Amino acid sequence: MGSYYVPPLDRLVEKFESLPGIGHKSAQRLAYTVLDMSREEAQDFAAAIVEAHEKIHTCKVCCNLTDGDLCPVCRSATRDKSTICVVEEPKDVFALERAGDYNGQYHVLHGAISPLSGVGPDQLKIKELLARMDGTVGEVIMATNPTVEGEATAMYVSRLLKPLGVKVTRLAYGIPVGGDLEYADEVTLQRALEGRQEL
Amino acid sequence: MGSYYVPPLDRLVEKFESLPGIGHKSAQRLAYTVLDMSREEAQDFAAAIVEAHEKIHTCKVCCNLTDGDLCPVCRSATRDKSTICVVEEPKDVFALERAGDYNGQYHVLHGAISPLSGVGPDQLKIKELLARMDGTVGEVIMATNPTVEGEATAMYVSRLLKPLGVKVTRLAYGIPVGGDLEYADEVTLQRALEGRQEL
Repeated sequence: MGSYYVPPLDRLVEKFESLPGIGHKSAQRLAYTVLDMSREEAQDFAAAIVEAHEKIHTCKVCCNLTDGDLCPVCRSATRDKSTICVVEEPKDVFALERAGDYNGQYHVLHGAISPLSGVGPDQLKIKELLARMDGTVGEVIMATNPTVEGEATAMYVSRLLKPLGVKVTRLAYGIPVGGDLEYADEVTLQRALEGRQEL
Repeated sequence: MGSYYVPPLDRLVEKFESLPGIGHKSAQRLAYTVLDMSREEAQDFAAAIVEAHEKIHTCKVCCNLTDGDLCPVCRSATRDKSTICVVEEPKDVFALERAGDYNGQYHVLHGAISPLSGVGPDQLKIKELLARMDGTVGEVIMATNPTVEGEATAMYVSRLLKPLGVKVTRLAYGIPVGGDLEYADEVTLQRALEGRQEL
């Protein structure tokens, strides 16, 4: 930086740089954007950060993010209580809700078992899931990611659930809609063949 | 989003999405990062935004960003007062200071003349630059970007300065150090040939 040093600007650039996927140049650009905002816009931005952080916590039933006691899904009277879809992260719930086809409950594990990253079953919301098996739940859909970690987590959880007499299913593997066979990897194609359906 | 809606989270995602170069997915990821911060970190982040916005303004001499009355360069007693390097944006000053070779003054225009974007000479800090020509300045280096707009701005400013008896120079064009001739465009190669230096 040579002799040029403006502490409040450097601090803001540093804060942006600490966010995932944002390098030094992008952080500078974001900081300049903040300086170009009106006073009100900048204060709104700061308030949104504090407010989100203060008001949002996990739903005491499904562990998804919410600003109320229960999340909107757990609160809803119209959603099927007998099916629970288990996902890794809150953003997976948003993705499934966007798809719009599912009308059951969710459970967010907040991660996947990953020995390499030091994440074991105890750090996930697995006992909260087991606590929900009170006889009203007929099916648990494992919708963890199609990765080694997601797969291992699905297997681990299903082994805990099956002895309780719950049906455990897994999302189908196959070629993505709108994709191109040419670009599908071998494992996906094998799974798509194995899971073929009669027309 | 289906039925899932958490207002404080959506507001934060929206704020991040309004920043340049940040799409919806990145904005979501940044919002989740904020939620994962400690209470103190989130408040620090918010405070950095408000503080930078409140404390930073333009230097009354060179129009660069600063939190004082004068910027560190204008304040410095050890820097050469007889040379002014004219740049488009504050980030260009940071780039030149990082290079470390330059020991003169700066002047930040806050943009370049661009009729297509509706930016004329009056929106730039050109009269502030002319006001600095009090006889102590011997050379003005035009370091606007090597684009059509930067070029036009350099020409425009130099025509105003020359009648005042000031020497006006332009950064050299040529092949970038560490670059590859093969990938240099024709215009750059032409300029590099024109500007060749004896070894």
